[in-house]
Amino acid sequence: MRILIINPNSSAPMTRSIEETARRVCSSGTDITAACPPDSPLSIEGHSDGALAAYHMLRLTDQSDPADGYVVACFDDTGVDALRERLAGPVLGIGEAAMHAATMLACRFSVLTTLERSVPIIEDNAARYGLGIRCRGVHASDLPVLALEESGDDSAFSIIREAATRILKKDRSDALVLGCGGMTHFAERLGNELGVPVVDGVSTAVRFVESLIGLNLGTSKAGGYAYPREKTSPISKEDSHA
Amino acid sequence: MRILIINPNSSAPMTRSIEETARRVCSSGTDITAACPPDSPLSIEGHSDGALAAYHMLRLTDQSDPADGYVVACFDDTGVDALRERLAGPVLGIGEAAMHAATMLACRFSVLTTLERSVPIIEDNAARYGLGIRCRGVHASDLPVLALEESGDDSAFSIIREAATRILKKDRSDALVLGCGGMTHFAERLGNELGVPVVDGVSTAVRFVESLIGLNLGTSKAGGYAYPREKTSPISKEDSHA
Amino acid sequence: MRILIINPNSSAPMTRSIEETARRVCSSGTDITAACPPDSPLSIEGHSDGALAAYHMLRLTDQSDPADGYVVACFDDTGVDALRERLAGPVLGIGEAAMHAATMLACRFSVLTTLERSVPIIEDNAARYGLGIRCRGVHASDLPVLALEESGDDSAFSIIREAATRILKKDRSDALVLGCGGMTHFAERLGNELGVPVVDGVSTAVRFVESLIGLNLGTSKAGGYAYPREKTSPISKEDSHA
Amino acid sequence: MRILIINPNSSAPMTRSIEETARRVCSSGTDITAACPPDSPLSIEGHSDGALAAYHMLRLTDQSDPADGYVVACFDDTGVDALRERLAGPVLGIGEAAMHAATMLACRFSVLTTLERSVPIIEDNAARYGLGIRCRGVHASDLPVLALEESGDDSAFSIIREAATRILKKDRSDALVLGCGGMTHFAERLGNELGVPVVDGVSTAVRFVESLIGLNLGTSKAGGYAYPREKTSPISKEDSHA
Amino acid sequence: MRILIINPNSSAPMTRSIEETARRVCSSGTDITAACPPDSPLSIEGHSDGALAAYHMLRLTDQSDPADGYVVACFDDTGVDALRERLAGPVLGIGEAAMHAATMLACRFSVLTTLERSVPIIEDNAARYGLGIRCRGVHASDLPVLALEESGDDSAFSIIREAATRILKKDRSDALVLGCGGMTHFAERLGNELGVPVVDGVSTAVRFVESLIGLNLGTSKAGGYAYPREKTSPISKEDSHA
Amino acid sequence: MRILIINPNSSAPMTRSIEETARRVCSSGTDITAACPPDSPLSIEGHSDGALAAYHMLRLTDQSDPADGYVVACFDDTGVDALRERLAGPVLGIGEAAMHAATMLACRFSVLTTLERSVPIIEDNAARYGLGIRCRGVHASDLPVLALEESGDDSAFSIIREAATRILKKDRSDALVLGCGGMTHFAERLGNELGVPVVDGVSTAVRFVESLIGLNLGTSKAGGYAYPREKTSPISKEDSHA
Repeated sequence: MRILIINPNSSAPMTRSIEETARRVCSSGTDITAACPPDSPLSIEGHSDGALAAYHMLRLTDQSDPADGYVVACFDDTGVDALRERLAGPVLGIGEAAMHAATMLACRFSVLTTLERSVPIIEDNAARYGLGIRCRGVHASDLPVLALEESGDDSAFSIIREAATRILKKDRSDALVLGCGGMTHFAERLGNELGVPVVDGVSTAVRFVESLIGLNLGTSKAGGYAYPREKTSPISKEDSHA
Repeated sequence: MRILIINPNSSAPMTRSIEETARRVCSSGTDITAACPPDSPLSIEGHSDGALAAYHMLRLTDQSDPADGYVVACFDDTGVDALRERLAGPVLGIGEAAMHAATMLACRFSVLTTLERSVPIIEDNAARYGLGIRCRGVHASDLPVLALEESGDDSAFSIIREAATRILKKDRSDALVLGCGGMTHFAERLGNELGVPVVDGVSTAVRFVESLIGLNLGTSKAGGYAYPREKTSPISKEDSHA
Repeated sequence: MRILIINPNSSAPMTRSIEETARRVCSSGTDITAACPPDSPLSIEGHSDGALAAYHMLRLTDQSDPADGYVVACFDDTGVDALRERLAGPVLGIGEAAMHAATMLACRFSVLTTLERSVPIIEDNAARYGLGIRCRGVHASDLPVLALEESGDDSAFSIIREAATRILKKDRSDALVLGCGGMTHFAERLGNELGVPVVDGVSTAVRFVESLIGLNLGTSKAGGYAYPREKTSPISKEDSHA
Repeated sequence: MRILIINPNSSAPMTRSIEETARRVCSSGTDITAACPPDSPLSIEGHSDGALAAYHMLRLTDQSDPADGYVVACFDDTGVDALRERLAGPVLGIGEAAMHAATMLACRFSVLTTLERSVPIIEDNAARYGLGIRCRGVHASDLPVLALEESGDDSAFSIIREAATRILKKDRSDALVLGCGGMTHFAERLGNELGVPVVDGVSTAVRFVESLIGLNLGTSKAGGYAYPREKTSPISKEDSHA
Repeated sequence: MRILIINPNSSAPMTRSIEETARRVCSSGTDITAACPPDSPLSIEGHSDGALAAYHMLRLTDQSDPADGYVVACFDDTGVDALRERLAGPVLGIGEAAMHAATMLACRFSVLTTLERSVPIIEDNAARYGLGIRCRGVHASDLPVLALEESGDDSAFSIIREAATRILKKDRSDALVLGCGGMTHFAERLGNELGVPVVDGVSTAVRFVESLIGLNLGTSKAGGYAYPREKTSPISKEDSHA
Repeated sequence: MRILIINPNSSAPMTRSIEETARRVCSSGTDITAACPPDSPLSIEGHSDGALAAYHMLRLTDQSDPADGYVVACFDDTGVDALRERLAGPVLGIGEAAMHAATMLACRFSVLTTLERSVPIIEDNAARYGLGIRCRGVHASDLPVLALEESGDDSAFSIIREAATRILKKDRSDALVLGCGGMTHFAERLGNELGVPVVDGVSTAVRFVESLIGLNLGTSKAGGYAYPREKTSPISKEDSHA
């Protein structure tokens, strides 16, 4: 079974880090490839980066061989709905994967993301996925995505751990969701130190997509995710912009 | 990895059928056992059956060797929260597993369950899981759980297929969720005939629990699912009821 | 008119205290009996205790003479739906009674319960009853149910009063709901000292059930609370577990 | 104990009918008076009638001796919040009383009111009281309030019964809520014929207010229902409108 | 085009201040008149003031020449639904206008109103308008409406600015909504000093009503806002109160 | 004042038609330009078209002179959040403009869009804007966007009118929202024939954006819509994809 992980941003080091995590956690026999659109923003910070990335992801998948399933490795679940329309295999965002999983493990969870500007995007997603009451808070560490790579791991880890400890206490939550694909490699160590489930979206999405593929379940092609219709204009586009 | 599937009702044939499905869909290397509490109701039809079953499930798991993860094979997700408190491995109800999965595959889904009396229970669960807008309707086939076994498979299948076709059209839904553990063996055939994803909770829950186990994620022991406290009364119980 | 109050836990002293409160507040002519299932947990702290208690409550009512109405004296409203299926008279949980009453008296209310682990259960109930915006917070005093009995009344009362004062101010709420059947005897004194309505679920539920009985209104037997169906298995249970 | 029932409209026959119902269902020892503001609209059909009636109700209660508790006998719960600010005793609308009671008796209920224009008002109230999922529909009989009096009882009853039967089936609801104070006298007969609980707001509100009074619970005077502040303008009103 | 602004309270200075603001911000060609009902409360502080004001507003508009559109200049949107029934032109409350506008300008906004007792009214409105997740908090400055006039502008402005700064930070909101018609004249200066959009309901409502009039859009006369029916009682009112 | 209307699809005829409508309804002194990205899909039918269009819209506005305000002329409100981040003037989608306006004019409204696949997108938007209870239904005419141009106006108008009549009756709604920018030119005629407000998003959005510009209100630059940060990677992109 082949899973394509699409890192919406164009950071190759983060893509490699995500690929490493995914290969470590996937089932034996699963073939993982991680790719990122070279022309995408270097990191996804907000709606505008997300919209640019969605476009480049659609081009990337159009030009790639079909995989059996797909993971979108941005916690904002950028472009997931759009990809679902064009692909037959299951497509899963790491945000929805992690948040759904957290509801299976804990009464209440909190999300720790990078920047304040991503908070309303994640709140809106959580509301749309219907997880409002389960999710007691979405918080920013104020550590940008790229700084997660730059800063020595220990320094970034300390900041994340300190923020996680604080928000779990403030929110009285029983589990932590890592709200960025770039925090993937911290999940296990953080879980050990915090003593509660720490849910990483990349790992969870890979395993959930494996599950859906294994069950022969793909994206529905009968409704809102049906393939886009071929459109032929009654008026030539050349004329339109003459 | 060992997964214990608990069929809340005491129907051994249904338990065996569930076990067969689970073994067919699980990953290689997963050891599946399905069990049912012998003193539970023969089928779970409503809140009262559910409350009786929850008690017997707690006794069953207390007396069983710990597994790595657990599936509760009733679409009402009977007793799932209670089990989570007493168990360290992940515990997943087939209702939540199927409904979360359906949101990953389709814009809108409908649920087909057995009896009308289960409809508000499932509606309440869907609301609590926050899936209201994704779930366009919960419908009853009026075919009781046990009749799914009794009636020749072809007869039951025809009723289910006819009802499924009708509700997908009425609700304009893109996927069907099978709202009863006893419909498990119909999922694949139904999916082929309907041309949309047909999500079976048993299969999905098995794969999702495998996923969580594989990621070393268990039930949080720090909050609402912490182990029950030992209680010692200041007043002896004998005295209490003297 | 005869009302049976079922204390889900097996604490006889608490049951007697609840019975005393109920007899003091009920209308003249109402015959109050309080009972508790002897094999139930000593206190209801979380989902697992609640599931055990629900089972024992069903057995208790099966073995009791029918009453005209029923009160379930645990703020989690443990087993209320299950009891409604098996009983014709109205059945009311003290959680729902108190929270509905609070909306009749105040724009916004807060709940003070015992342990943190009960908070998400009560939050979920409040959401299900639709009281989200009216209920500004559910808080734990960290005083376990049984400690309410053990500690001298003055000591426990001081803790409760201090916590109540703090949360009313923090939440800017106009009324307090006592979130545990074991706090019943504090209600009047606390109301006098705080100067806002302090709603006790036991008293309120008794009076509301009296109201429904007086109006000849019982539990609907036509839908989700209809009597459980008799089930006869096509396959003998002995065979099932052979 | 003295309860004042305020019929927001100025129909004396309806006021008398409401008073009769209330006296029949109240506890012994309760002194019921029903009154209506003589200058109010003849029936409350929509927001504008409701706003006029609220004003006249405030004047009526300002000029009346204080009662121990109050019932507002319009299903729209017209003016209830305003009255709560000016009165110390509990104030209950028949809409909220009936809808809260219905959730205590049935999994799902439907409301039958008079005119289509009242439907969104009741829907908004139900949403505000948080009863959305419990209330499966609000329907109009197209029989105006005053026609309930005019038409011979048998003719109006037939229309109501026919509409009730139809909507219970369509909504698959287990209880009916009568959505108008003018339907009060039909409740018992309708309940007998339909075989499900038929909840009348007038009766229910009277008993619930009795309950709250009996528990020494009044309207909170500490927050949103505190007494209106005395206002003294820095600028004389005469000057203002000179 | 003629717009009538109705200040629900009877403060002539505030009415003049509102009129000045409106005339300053309206389009050229728009004829603005602001009026207040002379017998209304001096300020609208809570539900009771609001109910009195609604009545006087209905009388005021009944006695006024029809305008092309109407603005209700109280942030509680007092009487707006009632006015809509009796008027053909669009009617807009300053609360809804400002809150809808804020969602067009910012991801998340906070409301700053006068007194704590108005907070639940505005929260309820925001919930009814469906803005829950966009509105991160409704806060009181504890400066009553009339004090906004009395205190020298600089003193009142300092209090408002200090409160605004504090709540924007606490709520992490990107825009401020002024929750009182009496704060209108502070909007521009406050926006300059805070560096985020400061939305004033009076200005916004005037422009939005202009927009609707310009588009020939008036209040629907076909449903819940249809004109009130003429009512003729079968029984003379004289007889009713004989 | 200059407003740029961005038609997300690349249909020049539709862009011209939108521009004509906008110029007809705008205030005197407003300078309207409508443009469409030449490489965008010919019509926006679903998430994938929307994602492609969002990208091209961002490029279009990056290359255009800044306007004072912006309208996005697709009822799905495609790319609106992304544009808000990059632009200082107010940005309004025709979907949100029309749905907010409808709540100002009618108790309940229905939306008529083109294809079934757009229904869940609009439902999700309505839920996110919080208009759930006000919006009684989103319906498809099954007339694709481009067919609105192709078919003679009379033929398309007949289909729209017939569908509108049917859904207003079925939903018991008091106003109709036209759920596609391509229906703009039908609004007035349809409103005349149906006798209820027919809200067109293009016209409404133009007037609302004029309003916001006139009030000096722009997109907040302090939070979720702040300008995207400049990002400099620690690792050269060339290296990344070497």
